[in-house]
Amino acid sequence: MSRVLVIGCGGVANVAVRKCCQVSDVFSELCIASRTKSKCDALAASLADKTETKITTAEVNADNVQEVIGLIRSYRPELVMNIALPYQDLTIMDACLACGVHYMDTANYEPEDTDDPAWRKIYEKRCKEAGFSAYFDYSWQWAYRERFEKAGLTALLGCGFDPGVTQAYCAYAKKHEFDRIDTIDILDCNGGDHGYPFATNFNPEVNLREVSAPGSYIENGKWVEIPAMSVKREYDFDQVGRKDMYLLHHEELESLAANFPEVKRLRFFMTFGQSYLTHMKCLENIGMLSTVPVDFEGTEIVPIKFLKALLPDPASLGPRTHGKTNIGCIFTGEQNGKKKAYYIYNICDHQECYREVESQAVSYTTGVPAMCGALMLLTKKWDKAGVYTVEEFDPDPFLDALDKYGLPRRENRAPVLVD
Amino acid sequence: MSRVLVIGCGGVANVAVRKCCQVSDVFSELCIASRTKSKCDALAASLADKTETKITTAEVNADNVQEVIGLIRSYRPELVMNIALPYQDLTIMDACLACGVHYMDTANYEPEDTDDPAWRKIYEKRCKEAGFSAYFDYSWQWAYRERFEKAGLTALLGCGFDPGVTQAYCAYAKKHEFDRIDTIDILDCNGGDHGYPFATNFNPEVNLREVSAPGSYIENGKWVEIPAMSVKREYDFDQVGRKDMYLLHHEELESLAANFPEVKRLRFFMTFGQSYLTHMKCLENIGMLSTVPVDFEGTEIVPIKFLKALLPDPASLGPRTHGKTNIGCIFTGEQNGKKKAYYIYNICDHQECYREVESQAVSYTTGVPAMCGALMLLTKKWDKAGVYTVEEFDPDPFLDALDKYGLPRRENRAPVLVD
Repeated sequence: MSRVLVIGCGGVANVAVRKCCQVSDVFSELCIASRTKSKCDALAASLADKTETKITTAEVNADNVQEVIGLIRSYRPELVMNIALPYQDLTIMDACLACGVHYMDTANYEPEDTDDPAWRKIYEKRCKEAGFSAYFDYSWQWAYRERFEKAGLTALLGCGFDPGVTQAYCAYAKKHEFDRIDTIDILDCNGGDHGYPFATNFNPEVNLREVSAPGSYIENGKWVEIPAMSVKREYDFDQVGRKDMYLLHHEELESLAANFPEVKRLRFFMTFGQSYLTHMKCLENIGMLSTVPVDFEGTEIVPIKFLKALLPDPASLGPRTHGKTNIGCIFTGEQNGKKKAYYIYNICDHQECYREVESQAVSYTTGVPAMCGALMLLTKKWDKAGVYTVEEFDPDPFLDALDKYGLPRRENRAPVLVD
Repeated sequence: MSRVLVIGCGGVANVAVRKCCQVSDVFSELCIASRTKSKCDALAASLADKTETKITTAEVNADNVQEVIGLIRSYRPELVMNIALPYQDLTIMDACLACGVHYMDTANYEPEDTDDPAWRKIYEKRCKEAGFSAYFDYSWQWAYRERFEKAGLTALLGCGFDPGVTQAYCAYAKKHEFDRIDTIDILDCNGGDHGYPFATNFNPEVNLREVSAPGSYIENGKWVEIPAMSVKREYDFDQVGRKDMYLLHHEELESLAANFPEVKRLRFFMTFGQSYLTHMKCLENIGMLSTVPVDFEGTEIVPIKFLKALLPDPASLGPRTHGKTNIGCIFTGEQNGKKKAYYIYNICDHQECYREVESQAVSYTTGVPAMCGALMLLTKKWDKAGVYTVEEFDPDPFLDALDKYGLPRRENRAPVLVD
């Protein structure tokens, strides 16, 4: 019997809330809050006669710590699930500390305008010092460790699929399958097809960053940086088939590198179709991905924002997306003196997700782990004060919950390895 | 000793005027008129100490018949060279009739907004009745035949390279090389490279129309329509090399079909690089080539106009374009009872053009024939009242003039034929 405040009402929050409402004995009361209360009301209304969970809604501007504090004080939740954009992670953490409630999110903090040249310099410096390439890193949120510890509160960071489940897979492999892990490859494959020649699941700026940022990975215990999209592999994914995938930097690499220092090689690969990449390249070539305003008939127009206006609304892709995602980790190492390999992954079907929660698999695979992470905290299966990423907790009850609530694990003890 | 009014001061007009000034004994006085007088003044100033031709300038809005009449009455030219956009062909023809002066242009009339749905219906009906696919046709200007005949005036239509020189090549082949022509293939190859990943020589709307309009050609004396870009051939062009080319509709096909009714097959091919086509396709896919305004933050924005603002200014391509154009016609037929093939073409080097007239070959190959056509009319080598296309005149003095003034013909009596 818990009371939870959910901040955010986008695609992922929609899934998380619907899943929480399937576990009403734990999530007995839920408040959905966002900048646009009408969206929260619509979601609450659609669930009204389908759940025992008592749902209320509220308006909140999460950029404003005092507003968040006011809402927490009036609703008195045990846990705040931050499922908004990652720009508000710090203000919400501040509010949780001020009010003495637990915190969790699905993606690590980044300042809102990473394209602001002044900010950008700061990130680049931070990341360079950290030794890898990214515009975001955990340092902002790790700086809260002592405060959460002292307050006896838990902050669970990045509890989606990747980051999130992939780190639980790592903890699981370490606990049950290996005495020593030598390599980890995280493989994120989206075999979905929305039928448009070009559209993006997220906002195009995020997509652009994925394909245009340098990649980085751990080799022999050290960060290696590579030019964007310069390492490509083909992999035959279970139930999806052969796909091209590219080595990227991805946020969980940072915490995994810190928590699995014995691992010699740690990489992240994501699939991109040739058509998607061709469109991105063409758009980049003509300057359409630029964030620098262009004068057009006397109006300042930011090309990438105009692009967003032209592309299909990401929310409209759900009903028309077919196919499956396949996300997981391949490990090599040793157990009982024998070399071994192990692949643990999940397959998720876009249409099945849509039928269940009116979202396709990209939102589903993030929203379900968010609910399961909250479940771990509320049921005290994960119970330690401080700021933690998923691999720092016992993976067993979390993976059991994922099995039960829609993202069952699959295992392969003779996987094809990635070169 | 003639006085000529040039209307227009864009890339092609720049070339035509500079070439006229190389033949001052014929073009003794020239008035350059356009909407923007300062452009005319700049061109005149750049030629001031380099020619015997006496140059003046004027401002004129060629959409307004009365303004054009006023200018003709005050300047009293023998010939008006219309080298402006094709939208003003009819108003300028009207003014020439009113004032009793000869007329010529480089591209056939089209109404300004072919994308206006109401207009579009009209063109589509006209063209459907004519039996081929195009948004423009000669019917608008052929309707002036009787009036020019009665007035004892000549209107020379489409005297650039294609339309223009290609039709003179046809008349030449018929006069000297064949008793009977069976097939004509017009091959337009631009092997130029401007070093940008994507840029267009003309305005992107015109480029778009080329690649997105259905193609048409004459087979067994009848028009055949094909889906856009559906017929592709590779051809090894002299001094350019192997290029992919595509069957398009092109305006001279209409007049050639009328003037060469014995020809069984008549086609037009233009080269496009894969990268150019890929960019056009991507831009089309995301809606960037649309002429329908999109609401963007409260402002109505026409995507293709915004695209134009992003792309390099076509005028800036001149100094950086390298490589050559190769445009010509391949004929098959019979002479003296023997089957034969014949290829006549011109090769033009972008950088050489730029050094001579500060324009690359695309403008050069249109501007030089415009001057040579005017030369034919002024020297009475072409002298008959009415409205005519180039193939209706004696090709010999015209091709001699082209040989002399920068676009020499080349011949091949054993050409590789196009399938």
